[in-house]
Amino acid sequence: MAMVKSLKERVFNFSPGPAVLPVPVLEEARDELLSHGDAGASVLEISHRSSQFSAILADSKQRLTDLLKVPDSYEVLFLQGGSRLQFSMVPMNLLRGAGSADYIVTGSWGKKAVDEARKEGRVNIVWDGNKTHYNRLPQASELQLDVNAAYVHYTSNETIQGVQFLTEPDVSNVPLVCDASSDFMCRPLSIKKYGLIYACAQKNAGPAGVTVVIIRKDLLERGSDDLPGYCNYRLHAADNSRYNTPPTFGIYIVSLVAKWLSDEIGGLAAMERQNRQKAELLYSVVDEDDFYIGHAQPESRSIMNVTFRLRNDDFQAKFIETAEEHGLYSLKGHRSVGGIRASIYNAIPIEGVIALRDFMLDFRKQNG
Amino acid sequence: MAMVKSLKERVFNFSPGPAVLPVPVLEEARDELLSHGDAGASVLEISHRSSQFSAILADSKQRLTDLLKVPDSYEVLFLQGGSRLQFSMVPMNLLRGAGSADYIVTGSWGKKAVDEARKEGRVNIVWDGNKTHYNRLPQASELQLDVNAAYVHYTSNETIQGVQFLTEPDVSNVPLVCDASSDFMCRPLSIKKYGLIYACAQKNAGPAGVTVVIIRKDLLERGSDDLPGYCNYRLHAADNSRYNTPPTFGIYIVSLVAKWLSDEIGGLAAMERQNRQKAELLYSVVDEDDFYIGHAQPESRSIMNVTFRLRNDDFQAKFIETAEEHGLYSLKGHRSVGGIRASIYNAIPIEGVIALRDFMLDFRKQNG
Repeated sequence: MAMVKSLKERVFNFSPGPAVLPVPVLEEARDELLSHGDAGASVLEISHRSSQFSAILADSKQRLTDLLKVPDSYEVLFLQGGSRLQFSMVPMNLLRGAGSADYIVTGSWGKKAVDEARKEGRVNIVWDGNKTHYNRLPQASELQLDVNAAYVHYTSNETIQGVQFLTEPDVSNVPLVCDASSDFMCRPLSIKKYGLIYACAQKNAGPAGVTVVIIRKDLLERGSDDLPGYCNYRLHAADNSRYNTPPTFGIYIVSLVAKWLSDEIGGLAAMERQNRQKAELLYSVVDEDDFYIGHAQPESRSIMNVTFRLRNDDFQAKFIETAEEHGLYSLKGHRSVGGIRASIYNAIPIEGVIALRDFMLDFRKQNG
Repeated sequence: MAMVKSLKERVFNFSPGPAVLPVPVLEEARDELLSHGDAGASVLEISHRSSQFSAILADSKQRLTDLLKVPDSYEVLFLQGGSRLQFSMVPMNLLRGAGSADYIVTGSWGKKAVDEARKEGRVNIVWDGNKTHYNRLPQASELQLDVNAAYVHYTSNETIQGVQFLTEPDVSNVPLVCDASSDFMCRPLSIKKYGLIYACAQKNAGPAGVTVVIIRKDLLERGSDDLPGYCNYRLHAADNSRYNTPPTFGIYIVSLVAKWLSDEIGGLAAMERQNRQKAELLYSVVDEDDFYIGHAQPESRSIMNVTFRLRNDDFQAKFIETAEEHGLYSLKGHRSVGGIRASIYNAIPIEGVIALRDFMLDFRKQNG
């Protein structure tokens, strides 16, 4: 048997997702990996209808409900297929047979959401940031929304470009649909402003393979019986996320992450304060001069993904390589845009961000 | 920090899925849970495009290819959504725009597959075992197959009823599509007989949340560009199962299970011998008299799910309760049919089956 690996072997991991998880979560999962509670078996091995998994599912749902103050008029679902499948499920359930939907496009993921929605119905792109390479968000005055739209879709945080909405766009009575994949649980939300929020878990909420959907119950009725069963929110809600075998281990990790958020961090308001502090440490270096060139305009900046460039590609490669020598991993920007991206999700400790900040200062000193 | 749990706390787990995993797999996953190889991070935390995960994905694919002798003309995919999503994806890709598909219904899951396929096109049920409560499989002479069908679909093992095809139905040149969810990797297969095989992993191949699809490459071309992106096999194949973020940890567990199958068990032929031996231990008790009443007819019996009844429900409840007192768990039949079901997948050790056999003998002695 190999040695159980220890904390000492871990690096600071700025991966954009799947991404770093809180150490206490990993430790608990490790300690229980051969036998969970009194189950006599691993969470990986127990039936999704067993009393033990039922308790995990209920716990996970309750903890998310508590952290986000989800009202009773909403359903919390745990699905599979990531945001990609949500790009289709949202219009399959809410756009088929309706007139049109409004999409606000602030980056690469919003664009992909539009491509899928167009297969299901009529889409109005009410704003598209492509002219400025998605470096800013729209002003409220720029959004000409259709009061009869089936819904308005937006992406609260664009991971690739590093732009994040500070607050929800005002959509009046039209259901607001949000792809919150990369900033879900980074701060408190006013759930009642939303018709539907979806988030793949692998940034702040858990591992890849679980997608959280929070949907206002009246919207469940919009899905037609003709939909592929797996794609119908109503069927998942009717069977409490067990319409099919759910990703049991992933849901377990979500429950552990939620426990960490409430018990160790002190809830989402406290988490947001830490996240703002972490982001400020890096943006302050970027703002000092033009050695690091930030991508997003200051008022649209993400507190999750800090994106910037250096003077050329070779120099960026050197930055990434040298950073790894200092134990700072996964800083390469998305292959579609290049540059540097530091993803500083909830579970990145402030020590990691300080280490990166110090490295940035040092690298500039050496190479400026 | 809690104690790392040990082997001593484990029971014999006859869960129908998610189901027991090999102990060496759980131990390796546990030992690496804080840091995988030289990644400095858990498999739960690394990017699906990192070199470390790329190696895991390649390893998982190669090991399945080797174990099943998958020819080059096939693609191995790792998807999400379980068999439920496959019930829809198969007809979305292969039936839309075609004439009709033939379905052989030998149990509960085959029936659900038909319900979904009917949403996508015309379905001919060429055989349905419902008249005898799905206790037997069709004879070749009973199958009137359409030579022009888009495909023939069947379920190689029906988990709920415990009936299993010994060999593939003969479908001539029509693509054969198989839901192999509950017997995948229990024995060698002749992949070239199939057009497409799918299997959710949580029986023999890994944890819930990963679905393996093996598809003949020419069939990839049948999926229309209009399909929801996630539901198009071609897009998954084009990006080597990374069209979206795959269930990374689940794929890692699949690779460990495949390694165990080849290195510890000695391959699928050896696995089949063990599985037949295990099943025989239980069926021999069932066959001795009418204390235990087997559901499936002997020639259609599953070597994965042994289903039987006792004289009444109260007595069955007593059997299940007493079994748990002896460390034999999850023996309750599916809620839709009742009775007893012992799922004896690959990772159930023979000691577990002997313990169950001995318990069955003893219970009969005490209560016969």
